[in-house]
Amino acid sequence: MYSYERKKFHPQNSILNIDELLDLTSKFIIKREVIDKFEVLDISSKDRLRLNSVLFLKKRTKIPSNSFKNIFIITDDILIFENNNFKNKLLVNHLDSVYSLIANKLFIHDDNILYKDEFDLKNNSLISKYSSIDSSTKVHPNCIIGRGVEIGKNCIIKNNVVIKNAIILENVTICENTTIGSTGFGFNINNLGSSNLIPQLGIVHIGKNVHIGANCTVDRAKIDLTIIGDNSMIDNLVHVAHNVEIGKNACIAAQCGISGSVKIGNNFISGGQSGYAGHITIGNNVIVAAKSGVTKNLKHNSKVAGFPAINIYDWKKNIIKMRK
Amino acid sequence: MYSYERKKFHPQNSILNIDELLDLTSKFIIKREVIDKFEVLDISSKDRLRLNSVLFLKKRTKIPSNSFKNIFIITDDILIFENNNFKNKLLVNHLDSVYSLIANKLFIHDDNILYKDEFDLKNNSLISKYSSIDSSTKVHPNCIIGRGVEIGKNCIIKNNVVIKNAIILENVTICENTTIGSTGFGFNINNLGSSNLIPQLGIVHIGKNVHIGANCTVDRAKIDLTIIGDNSMIDNLVHVAHNVEIGKNACIAAQCGISGSVKIGNNFISGGQSGYAGHITIGNNVIVAAKSGVTKNLKHNSKVAGFPAINIYDWKKNIIKMRK
Amino acid sequence: MYSYERKKFHPQNSILNIDELLDLTSKFIIKREVIDKFEVLDISSKDRLRLNSVLFLKKRTKIPSNSFKNIFIITDDILIFENNNFKNKLLVNHLDSVYSLIANKLFIHDDNILYKDEFDLKNNSLISKYSSIDSSTKVHPNCIIGRGVEIGKNCIIKNNVVIKNAIILENVTICENTTIGSTGFGFNINNLGSSNLIPQLGIVHIGKNVHIGANCTVDRAKIDLTIIGDNSMIDNLVHVAHNVEIGKNACIAAQCGISGSVKIGNNFISGGQSGYAGHITIGNNVIVAAKSGVTKNLKHNSKVAGFPAINIYDWKKNIIKMRK
Repeated sequence: MYSYERKKFHPQNSILNIDELLDLTSKFIIKREVIDKFEVLDISSKDRLRLNSVLFLKKRTKIPSNSFKNIFIITDDILIFENNNFKNKLLVNHLDSVYSLIANKLFIHDDNILYKDEFDLKNNSLISKYSSIDSSTKVHPNCIIGRGVEIGKNCIIKNNVVIKNAIILENVTICENTTIGSTGFGFNINNLGSSNLIPQLGIVHIGKNVHIGANCTVDRAKIDLTIIGDNSMIDNLVHVAHNVEIGKNACIAAQCGISGSVKIGNNFISGGQSGYAGHITIGNNVIVAAKSGVTKNLKHNSKVAGFPAINIYDWKKNIIKMRK
Repeated sequence: MYSYERKKFHPQNSILNIDELLDLTSKFIIKREVIDKFEVLDISSKDRLRLNSVLFLKKRTKIPSNSFKNIFIITDDILIFENNNFKNKLLVNHLDSVYSLIANKLFIHDDNILYKDEFDLKNNSLISKYSSIDSSTKVHPNCIIGRGVEIGKNCIIKNNVVIKNAIILENVTICENTTIGSTGFGFNINNLGSSNLIPQLGIVHIGKNVHIGANCTVDRAKIDLTIIGDNSMIDNLVHVAHNVEIGKNACIAAQCGISGSVKIGNNFISGGQSGYAGHITIGNNVIVAAKSGVTKNLKHNSKVAGFPAINIYDWKKNIIKMRK
Repeated sequence: MYSYERKKFHPQNSILNIDELLDLTSKFIIKREVIDKFEVLDISSKDRLRLNSVLFLKKRTKIPSNSFKNIFIITDDILIFENNNFKNKLLVNHLDSVYSLIANKLFIHDDNILYKDEFDLKNNSLISKYSSIDSSTKVHPNCIIGRGVEIGKNCIIKNNVVIKNAIILENVTICENTTIGSTGFGFNINNLGSSNLIPQLGIVHIGKNVHIGANCTVDRAKIDLTIIGDNSMIDNLVHVAHNVEIGKNACIAAQCGISGSVKIGNNFISGGQSGYAGHITIGNNVIVAAKSGVTKNLKHNSKVAGFPAINIYDWKKNIIKMRK
């Protein structure tokens, strides 16, 4: 997986020693076990462990087999808490609230009123002093390129585009009025309100030779990366939610919506106005007809249509039967 | 209902005395009855009467039981005209045309070429001299905050957002490239063309702690308010049409479209890409599955899916049957 | 059809004499026949022939009956190549690749890193020095009006709108954050990646009295024009793809998506969230219910609903049956 330094995008607000962390989250703690007293700098996901970090493990998560040196485990699952040899661990209720407390203490992200950036005006666009754009790349007027953003060679960023919290490789085109790296739509349904939005500390990673149309939204990940693979072509008004991963050579027609944490293989073709339920996995070489609603995992080489989406040949047969 | 002064947003163009009003609309008048000769300053809706105003009552509208002092009734319904003790009333054909004539005479709105605003450049955003933004609120660069707009404490307005004709309470976040307060899509199908757009003289009212995603559109009301209730969470690329009222604690996923004048209760949950026909009423605690098309009123606690949307359990049974 | 000069929008990069053209495309050439050795300046479509141009004829295209003086025919269809009296012709494999090579040699478009424009700052909008806007027209702040753009009398262009590669007649309103003239989503599925986007050298033509809502996208044509007819009303978040032609008096509700090359007659009414498959033809006076997916040509006066869209009365009967 691609690597990046979180605080380049989301400035470090503070570092928590273990006592401070316990203090901060005390009202949610059920059980604790602390051996190492390292300082907490960052947040890990189970797919990507970071040094001196906290790792949140939701109920029934499969435990990653990685080593856990200098990682503090926080879970709301007593089985995870009891049955593992983690050195440093907390059992809490309301894992989302504990995540939010710690994330907001460690980092300043753009849903926090303290967030700020500094810009230079270049060719009528605002380019963050903390961004890095290859000199061969063309940023058209009225864009915002935010802090931490990296843009590779020969990219074209058209007018009124906002790019924040993103790494973009070479030869990428992003069309007008598109928003890259906006906040993911993550919250606990029992705890609504803008200030309860779960902090989104990840970024967007866009591969080489990608084309993204006009008026699209690609949200940054919660902890790691929202990924759009090399050579992918995305039409207008498409929504790509947080933590989505799209493989290489995708073709996504206008007004598609891909919900959070969907994982898609290579050579994906999606017709217009299709939608994808959250957290599903889609194999390689999958074709989804226009207006489909995909609610379940799809195997490699699937061709589906309809809502809920089924095999396209079955869908066509059903249509013919219904007409009779 | 929230109160606001219309001319703060839409400058008063002129005041009409009754003779001028009769003159202006003469070619549409069928019958008239005028006792008081007050000056007309404003337009009322039946939900909100305003002093010295005109009230338009469409065919078969239920008559509000309020008092009607200094209100001029204009209707295209002979029964409304005949069977009520209004002191000042007109019977007309083409109610929409009469509304447009009077509205455009009284006020200048942003679909009128005369509309203008004056801005200060602050942090690279254009802030109307006639707007009011709490000093704790953060407006990121490249935004437009238009005339009359009020924004409360601790709001975050991200890049490239346009906010016009809106009152926004505290702790609201509005994400990139979103448009708040644009014109409602109101017109008579027999009278098309941009200059026949029915004047939209209302505003948008956004409650406390609301989150609105990127690249959304929330249109202002025709006469009163488009309302988004406290603690509501709205994802990206969502469309909220004119006169829509959404209660507290709504969760609306990406690419939903809510047509004009839909009224929605509290604790509404809407899956992505759902659509709502105009003028329907949706109760409290309603859940609508993704991709639904809701065409009728929904009672409190309904759970629906499909198009046309039906009870979600029935919908699931139908799907299973159809698969056999 | 409306006429325009391509290089006003897409600067001429170079002129190709026939030898250069043969050289450039040599690796794709199967057969050739060249009599006249004129200089190639432009690209024709079969609907609109241009002087000293290349005309690409895809497999099984019907041959236009126009005269072909100073036009160079390039086809991937041996029957077209053999059975016509074209004076100057090439038979190639990979017609799309040959088109792209020649188009990119002749013109610089905005998907090319060399594309540039020069702007004046007026009322806080950037207006290309190479555009032409009637003095009665009002461009609100934060817009981009790109090179070649012509805007007629009494238009209103609201904030944050991007207009490139477009001719707009009088009395047109375009609402906030909308993108007009962005690149069409054209590519060969076997040849992905941003640099393989097929050059889009056309423009958008918007008739008189058109209203276009907020956060819409209207893509320019590949060679000729994407057309929106007089008096048409388009709501928010609508997508109009390249080469679409919409007649007069259309009403298109929010979040509709019209795929590439769809031709639509006059007096079209489309409910919200409807979608249209590419390359279909829709007659006059057609009504399409909300959320429909139209996959086939529709005759004049059709009323359809559902996906795939069928006669609306049949659709309603089916719904009632299914409920039983």
